[in-house]
Amino acid sequence: MAANVTHKLIESHLVSGELKPGDEIAIRIDQTLTQDATGTLVMQELEALGLDRAQTEVSVQYVDHNLLQTDEKNAEDHEYLRTAAQHFGLWFSKPGNGVSHPTHMQRFGIPGKTMVGSDSHTPAAGSLGMLAIGVGGLEVAVAIAGKPLHLRMPEVWGVRLEGELPQWCSAKDVILEMLRRHDVKGGVNRIIEYYGPGLATLTAMDRHVIANMGAELGATTSVFPSDDAVREFLRAEGREDDWVELLPDDGADYDIDETIDLSELEPLIAKPSSPGNVVPVREVVGEPIAQVVIGSSANPGLRDFAIAAAMVDGRQTSPAVSFDINPTSRQILADLMSMGATTSLVMAGARIHQAGCMGCIGMGQAPATGHNSLRTMPRNFPGRSGTKEDKVWLCSPETAAASALTGVITDPREWAKTEGVDYPTLRIPEKNSINTAMLVPPLEPDEAKDVEPVKGPNISGLPDLEPLPDEFEAPVLLKVGDNISTDEISPAGARALPFRSNIPKLAAFSFTQIDESYPDRAQEADETGHVIVGGDNYGQGSSREHAAIALRQLGLRVVIAKSFARIHWQNLANFGVLALEFVDADDYDSIEQDDTLAFTNLQKALAENEPITIKNVTKDTTFKVCQRLSPRQVDYILAGGLIPQLTREADDG
Amino acid sequence: MAANVTHKLIESHLVSGELKPGDEIAIRIDQTLTQDATGTLVMQELEALGLDRAQTEVSVQYVDHNLLQTDEKNAEDHEYLRTAAQHFGLWFSKPGNGVSHPTHMQRFGIPGKTMVGSDSHTPAAGSLGMLAIGVGGLEVAVAIAGKPLHLRMPEVWGVRLEGELPQWCSAKDVILEMLRRHDVKGGVNRIIEYYGPGLATLTAMDRHVIANMGAELGATTSVFPSDDAVREFLRAEGREDDWVELLPDDGADYDIDETIDLSELEPLIAKPSSPGNVVPVREVVGEPIAQVVIGSSANPGLRDFAIAAAMVDGRQTSPAVSFDINPTSRQILADLMSMGATTSLVMAGARIHQAGCMGCIGMGQAPATGHNSLRTMPRNFPGRSGTKEDKVWLCSPETAAASALTGVITDPREWAKTEGVDYPTLRIPEKNSINTAMLVPPLEPDEAKDVEPVKGPNISGLPDLEPLPDEFEAPVLLKVGDNISTDEISPAGARALPFRSNIPKLAAFSFTQIDESYPDRAQEADETGHVIVGGDNYGQGSSREHAAIALRQLGLRVVIAKSFARIHWQNLANFGVLALEFVDADDYDSIEQDDTLAFTNLQKALAENEPITIKNVTKDTTFKVCQRLSPRQVDYILAGGLIPQLTREADDG
Repeated sequence: MAANVTHKLIESHLVSGELKPGDEIAIRIDQTLTQDATGTLVMQELEALGLDRAQTEVSVQYVDHNLLQTDEKNAEDHEYLRTAAQHFGLWFSKPGNGVSHPTHMQRFGIPGKTMVGSDSHTPAAGSLGMLAIGVGGLEVAVAIAGKPLHLRMPEVWGVRLEGELPQWCSAKDVILEMLRRHDVKGGVNRIIEYYGPGLATLTAMDRHVIANMGAELGATTSVFPSDDAVREFLRAEGREDDWVELLPDDGADYDIDETIDLSELEPLIAKPSSPGNVVPVREVVGEPIAQVVIGSSANPGLRDFAIAAAMVDGRQTSPAVSFDINPTSRQILADLMSMGATTSLVMAGARIHQAGCMGCIGMGQAPATGHNSLRTMPRNFPGRSGTKEDKVWLCSPETAAASALTGVITDPREWAKTEGVDYPTLRIPEKNSINTAMLVPPLEPDEAKDVEPVKGPNISGLPDLEPLPDEFEAPVLLKVGDNISTDEISPAGARALPFRSNIPKLAAFSFTQIDESYPDRAQEADETGHVIVGGDNYGQGSSREHAAIALRQLGLRVVIAKSFARIHWQNLANFGVLALEFVDADDYDSIEQDDTLAFTNLQKALAENEPITIKNVTKDTTFKVCQRLSPRQVDYILAGGLIPQLTREADDG
Repeated sequence: MAANVTHKLIESHLVSGELKPGDEIAIRIDQTLTQDATGTLVMQELEALGLDRAQTEVSVQYVDHNLLQTDEKNAEDHEYLRTAAQHFGLWFSKPGNGVSHPTHMQRFGIPGKTMVGSDSHTPAAGSLGMLAIGVGGLEVAVAIAGKPLHLRMPEVWGVRLEGELPQWCSAKDVILEMLRRHDVKGGVNRIIEYYGPGLATLTAMDRHVIANMGAELGATTSVFPSDDAVREFLRAEGREDDWVELLPDDGADYDIDETIDLSELEPLIAKPSSPGNVVPVREVVGEPIAQVVIGSSANPGLRDFAIAAAMVDGRQTSPAVSFDINPTSRQILADLMSMGATTSLVMAGARIHQAGCMGCIGMGQAPATGHNSLRTMPRNFPGRSGTKEDKVWLCSPETAAASALTGVITDPREWAKTEGVDYPTLRIPEKNSINTAMLVPPLEPDEAKDVEPVKGPNISGLPDLEPLPDEFEAPVLLKVGDNISTDEISPAGARALPFRSNIPKLAAFSFTQIDESYPDRAQEADETGHVIVGGDNYGQGSSREHAAIALRQLGLRVVIAKSFARIHWQNLANFGVLALEFVDADDYDSIEQDDTLAFTNLQKALAENEPITIKNVTKDTTFKVCQRLSPRQVDYILAGGLIPQLTREADDG
């Protein structure tokens, strides 16, 4: 059979299982990526697992989320991460060095390798022909410890690209087109593999834009071949030796087939407040805006900033618009400076921020209530910007820059026509300003042992996790709708994010955007534990395992939903929370908040993978649920979670 | 009599009074400066005063403090300030355009003019031969309304500069030497005037460093002559036409005489946690550091960043050090980019932040608890950095850059010797990259009327102020020591600062660094009001009138101290709080927290300026206090404050 790139990547790393969609497989992991907002837990998990030293080829701890340092907590976390990375033999990327995804791609990405990362945008590395999967922190910790990643074999969705993008359209419009077609759960349990003649016009960094934001489709990951464009990228990074070719076989098969004719695309924009609300920009022109933000892992490339710089050069942004630039890596910032692009931006009124995630996860740049903010970022979930009633739109740098100049949402093609401007030809340097000195390499093993991780008062330690009882009654403390994101479950933003190392404090923010009383009510129900009922695609978005562990700390034992997003589903299992799906989705309507549910004979039902009958004690009714856990997962759910299970195994062994 | 520059400036603007130290004078104000953290109140005060349109030659509203935007409040304040500035006919400087002081100097400063600013570092404009005084917001509002500034005529302190600074020393070491000699209250009720042959080697921006941080001596302001260095500065800014010469007469007299031989200076540093704790750097070398911050209004110039860039060029800062750069104006940032200086900084590991005050007022970049942070900033009051138990040191860019490279406090002369480095010769552009487009000019009067200031939910309005009763009893709710700063009275920082437009919310932060229970206890004592007892130099530091108005909102009626810092003393009067000084400083010791004090016959005693006898009801003792209010000030204290008084006058007239 003619193999696609995805199958080649999986086969070359397969430890167990078969490449049959739905079957559990295990694959060897070559590289890991952690960032600070999830990494402080990963380092504590490595401790809990008793790890001596990282067993991967490359593991890098980045600091890109918590950069504002509004009090001592961020700086103390940075110090913990730096010393823990040294202790465990990891690379450490200092604050200001950049967002993990473009930085990793520039310095460490290698075609043909596998990677897991405790960040949902880890798939960005698929741009280089890697199999890169976003997972919860504990899965990364397990990978760092040298154990394989388990997952259900996804379907492979081949997207054939034809033609060439028109002027004033760019890679962002490709992924927005995918979201326009398939919405935020179109990619669940699928790997998207791009191929075809249209690829030739997309650079590796363009592909990063597409692979990165594949996370918004709910896809397991996105994969590109390793071709000449990848070779050129690695050459510019001084790493041509790391290049290997990785192409699909001629006539490769895909489980699902789709085609995009790039030449038919036009500028697109996702309306508030979902990445799936995509419409052509021309349908919303004229909406007044108060902010434009360019950057983030969804438009990290030199060209993404340079095109905006070329458009605003010699012009002035609207007085009512805050024009914010978030450089994504120190190296890209240095190159933009050398090109003169940052000067054009600053002279046009830009506020240039330090390299990092910044406004993308609500760390600064929050817009005024109800004022439109146009961003090149990957997500516009409600409140993620830091403003409760925000209006965030997602678009390309071209649309963003044109709109910053006019003060209203603007189709860049129309702006160009009005201003008599040609689509800029960018002179991108052939060789980037490579500087590896800011990346702190792993210490030698004997030196590493002497470095004791420095824990500030904000590092709480992990909670103790009790085994799941065989039968119990518990109230439904919260009932929510479809597409609930992990931003809503455990918010990021400047208030909550500094507590990512402090589970009890962080827990108090859980679900507060939807129901401020939830954390208190959960504390009150502490003895029995509690249940949450959700709709479709529960737990979409970021990979933060805090959305499982902080709620587990509050007493969450079971989530019953119509369907789950992959990473959050796995995180729930990792921390001993049972994720159950309605057999009949209509039963969702029969449950009300505060109903008490009774669970019986759980162990047997889970072990035998039978449907489970739950009694609604309040309504005196019953309904059926099922679950998709593998026997391996059932084992550790019953043990209370993966950490108790692994430490028990270690003790036994 | 041979006149000094200070007397020339005052005489040319004198409305009433005589230039006799201690007498109240009134002077005409040509320009005003407000920043966002104080400006939202100023705009509300203009409304309360019923102003139609600014009556000054130039009034500029800057946005430089609240730039982090961790939620919607900052952006909503910016929108309020932009629309209010347009309504009242002010210039508006957008967020990201820079810190008020260097930006004002670059675009609006004119030798021979007077200015008040609602920021304690307003004296920085003294570098251009202006008389620039930091005052509370209400004083600025009054000046914008075209009324003169009243103040007690200070003494003029002539500081003759001789010689030339040695290599590896710069302007910061001059003002640190002044602080080493005279500590934080050496300048109270004085204007410092620099003159002499040593001036020839100091550029206008060097003088800005010295004039700016004169605020830390408690001086009313600092003044430099307008000479060729000022002409050269204005030429580089494309404003040579604004230059006028303003020199002291030959043999000009000063009330106090002092000399500094620049050639005898060495690198100096202020230890935690007062700008007055100055020692030579060589006495503290080797202390490990975790952070270096370069920038702020105390080292804002192109050369201050360029010298650091030249020192770190091609080198790498220590892995354990966060190397933070705060550009001070958009224009300086653009020029640094063009020079390649920002590239050198970034490649050496710098985190470049947006142009603004940032870490200087605790808006980000807070260090880890107990870890040393070296900053080129003007202040290191306890907790001002945003970290409760901080260790902030103040030094020159040379000392900061050398230390960032080594990871320990380093004398730049020793570093140069070890590295074999010559003192860098900087190639500063002769002409700056002037761009006025980001400054939004005042609207024409008929257009201005149509702009309604947009008030978000965070703009609280001003509290109603009751007249001062003639007799009352009130408890001493707090007794504090010497040199209490307004940072301790009403903290800045990322938690409190966003509430600067919301007095009731801000009030809850009052004095919490010293006593967390104070706001609650004050609320409880609301009916009687309360008293605070302080030591020497009470209310030093920032000009924030919030330190008066927020405490007045909590019921503060009287502060009794050994002595007061000028601006805070004036702010207390403006908001109807009586500031009394012990006749015998030893009586300070006789009062304890929670004692009840009885005040009688206040109106007569104030009107006749007699010493006031206060009874300590708890201790059954009495003690005497005096006050330094002019009859004009007594009038409005009795009325409840300056706003009730001015609106009453307006109603009567």
